[in-house]
Amino acid sequence: MTETLNRQYYLASRPAGEPTTANVPVREVPLPALGAGEVRLRNLYISLDPAIRGWMSDEPNYIEPIVLGDVVRASVIGRVVASAHKDFAVGDVAMTMGGWEAYTQVQGATLNKLDETLGIPLSQFLGVLGPTGLTAYFGLLEIGQPKAGETVLVSAAAGAVGSVVGQIAKMQGCRVVGMAGSEAKCNWLTGELGFDAAINYKTCGDYRQAIAAACPDGVDVYFDNVGGEILDAALRQMNRFGRVVVCGWIASYNADEVPHLKNLWQLVARSVTLRGFVVLDFLERFPEGVAQLAQWVMDGKLQSREEIIDGLDNVLPGFLRLFNGSNQGKLVLRIPEE
Amino acid sequence: MTETLNRQYYLASRPAGEPTTANVPVREVPLPALGAGEVRLRNLYISLDPAIRGWMSDEPNYIEPIVLGDVVRASVIGRVVASAHKDFAVGDVAMTMGGWEAYTQVQGATLNKLDETLGIPLSQFLGVLGPTGLTAYFGLLEIGQPKAGETVLVSAAAGAVGSVVGQIAKMQGCRVVGMAGSEAKCNWLTGELGFDAAINYKTCGDYRQAIAAACPDGVDVYFDNVGGEILDAALRQMNRFGRVVVCGWIASYNADEVPHLKNLWQLVARSVTLRGFVVLDFLERFPEGVAQLAQWVMDGKLQSREEIIDGLDNVLPGFLRLFNGSNQGKLVLRIPEE
Repeated sequence: MTETLNRQYYLASRPAGEPTTANVPVREVPLPALGAGEVRLRNLYISLDPAIRGWMSDEPNYIEPIVLGDVVRASVIGRVVASAHKDFAVGDVAMTMGGWEAYTQVQGATLNKLDETLGIPLSQFLGVLGPTGLTAYFGLLEIGQPKAGETVLVSAAAGAVGSVVGQIAKMQGCRVVGMAGSEAKCNWLTGELGFDAAINYKTCGDYRQAIAAACPDGVDVYFDNVGGEILDAALRQMNRFGRVVVCGWIASYNADEVPHLKNLWQLVARSVTLRGFVVLDFLERFPEGVAQLAQWVMDGKLQSREEIIDGLDNVLPGFLRLFNGSNQGKLVLRIPEE
Repeated sequence: MTETLNRQYYLASRPAGEPTTANVPVREVPLPALGAGEVRLRNLYISLDPAIRGWMSDEPNYIEPIVLGDVVRASVIGRVVASAHKDFAVGDVAMTMGGWEAYTQVQGATLNKLDETLGIPLSQFLGVLGPTGLTAYFGLLEIGQPKAGETVLVSAAAGAVGSVVGQIAKMQGCRVVGMAGSEAKCNWLTGELGFDAAINYKTCGDYRQAIAAACPDGVDVYFDNVGGEILDAALRQMNRFGRVVVCGWIASYNADEVPHLKNLWQLVARSVTLRGFVVLDFLERFPEGVAQLAQWVMDGKLQSREEIIDGLDNVLPGFLRLFNGSNQGKLVLRIPEE
């Protein structure tokens, strides 16, 4: 059997701000022989998520930091090219936690098989029917607990999580206001997605005034994807007993200088709850969430947008698009099949 | 009828840091004639609480800021000296929201009559059986939701709220660690009050290391009375799904420079909830709380300490003792009966 080379982007050193090619270089290493129960995937899609930046730091996190020298960790979807597990045959498609690499080889027990015959694009299992959709679903409904008639504010609202949060909040009968970084994104929110209002945070001037104008009855649920100054402003507009859902704090991940929140004591003045979570907290309820999200997608009630970047060698520049606000929707790297 | 003069400490200007005699001068004004349904109390005890500092600022709060020119607001206990309300007779003792003043004259409907025959010192109705005790009771049990075997960390643990929090947590079967500002306070916590450990935050050095050493299994509930650097350190020691009960942030009240929390994103990494509250959120359940606290006091399970300051003219220097950490237990101003 000819030795197969695996092309991998690995963590050589921990980034200070945005990761560079020096932090994440590429290498080609031979794939080990298939062990008992293992499956080898030829990766088709790699999920690019803000959380990956957190795993690159040597900080306590909900899963272990990436060990120096290891491939950068990411969810992947791949086609089985070799299998030593009874449930997987060559040609099957499956999803697992893999990495920024051409092949992922893991125990078959860690794989979820995907059904290509459903007519759902495979990449959506990394997005609206995957971690980002589930993050929106459980984060909004379980942590945010929105009630009909309440106002829900969402930051990074045109992103993979925020866009789903807003659409679900509308289905709950809430007034929904999104914050995004361009007129095009704002128009998409208030147009196709049916948000009640959108704030372009790059042009709106004072955040607090902009939020106050868009949320005349105050904010009951703030789904916070960014932290920092927008959170600080939102804290001044929260209603009594309001809930701040703290999801991913993109703004903090790349900053050596963590933003200084000056309004945090409003938590006491307004009896506000600030609750952090990760989607893995709801692991046992994933089937329920996926089923509901898939139903909404098939009913045309839930739209999603993807941005596909082609080619493994574009993984790092593609990933960095998450931090400059230039991506629209769920960012996925595709490695086309030959 | 001779006109009665009322001596009042009023808010002349809003303090920048600690309030001064220029911010809070004294005046003597004639008491208005008793209106329909009104009762006049000759004050016996005035409660000195950190929250009063918050009310002096022109910031959104759970109750309105004190209007410039108005007497400084505070809970008071007084003896009825004149009554136009059928439920109150001269000689009765009652509690209400009054101010830093010799007499408080309000609608009888706002008064709670106190029973002097119970043998409970009246001042305790401003402390362990009043707002501070209720803050500890509802904050710990409802917001913190401690479970037996969990670790509860309390800051300002020798204070009126913190000392009750720790004792209730012990009754719940928790490991209880208190932080306080002197060896004497720490000894009181681990001695008389039965805390498992105490940290002298003035001498312990690095807060995070001190908390880690005293809480080897991490922190499940942090009852935060101070905010700032101690909160920032505690955030690094929280367990997954931990709860931070945000009560009064004394450290922030006098600071123009709000402390910079660098570890707030640990909320996400650890799925931690940070929830602010004020005791008024539980207004409807006060009778339940007072009954339980009184039972514990009578059973000898709940100890409290008071510091009594005599004389209305000592109200401002007395109040400032809350902010330099020199008081032990609930601070009460007494105006002795002649």
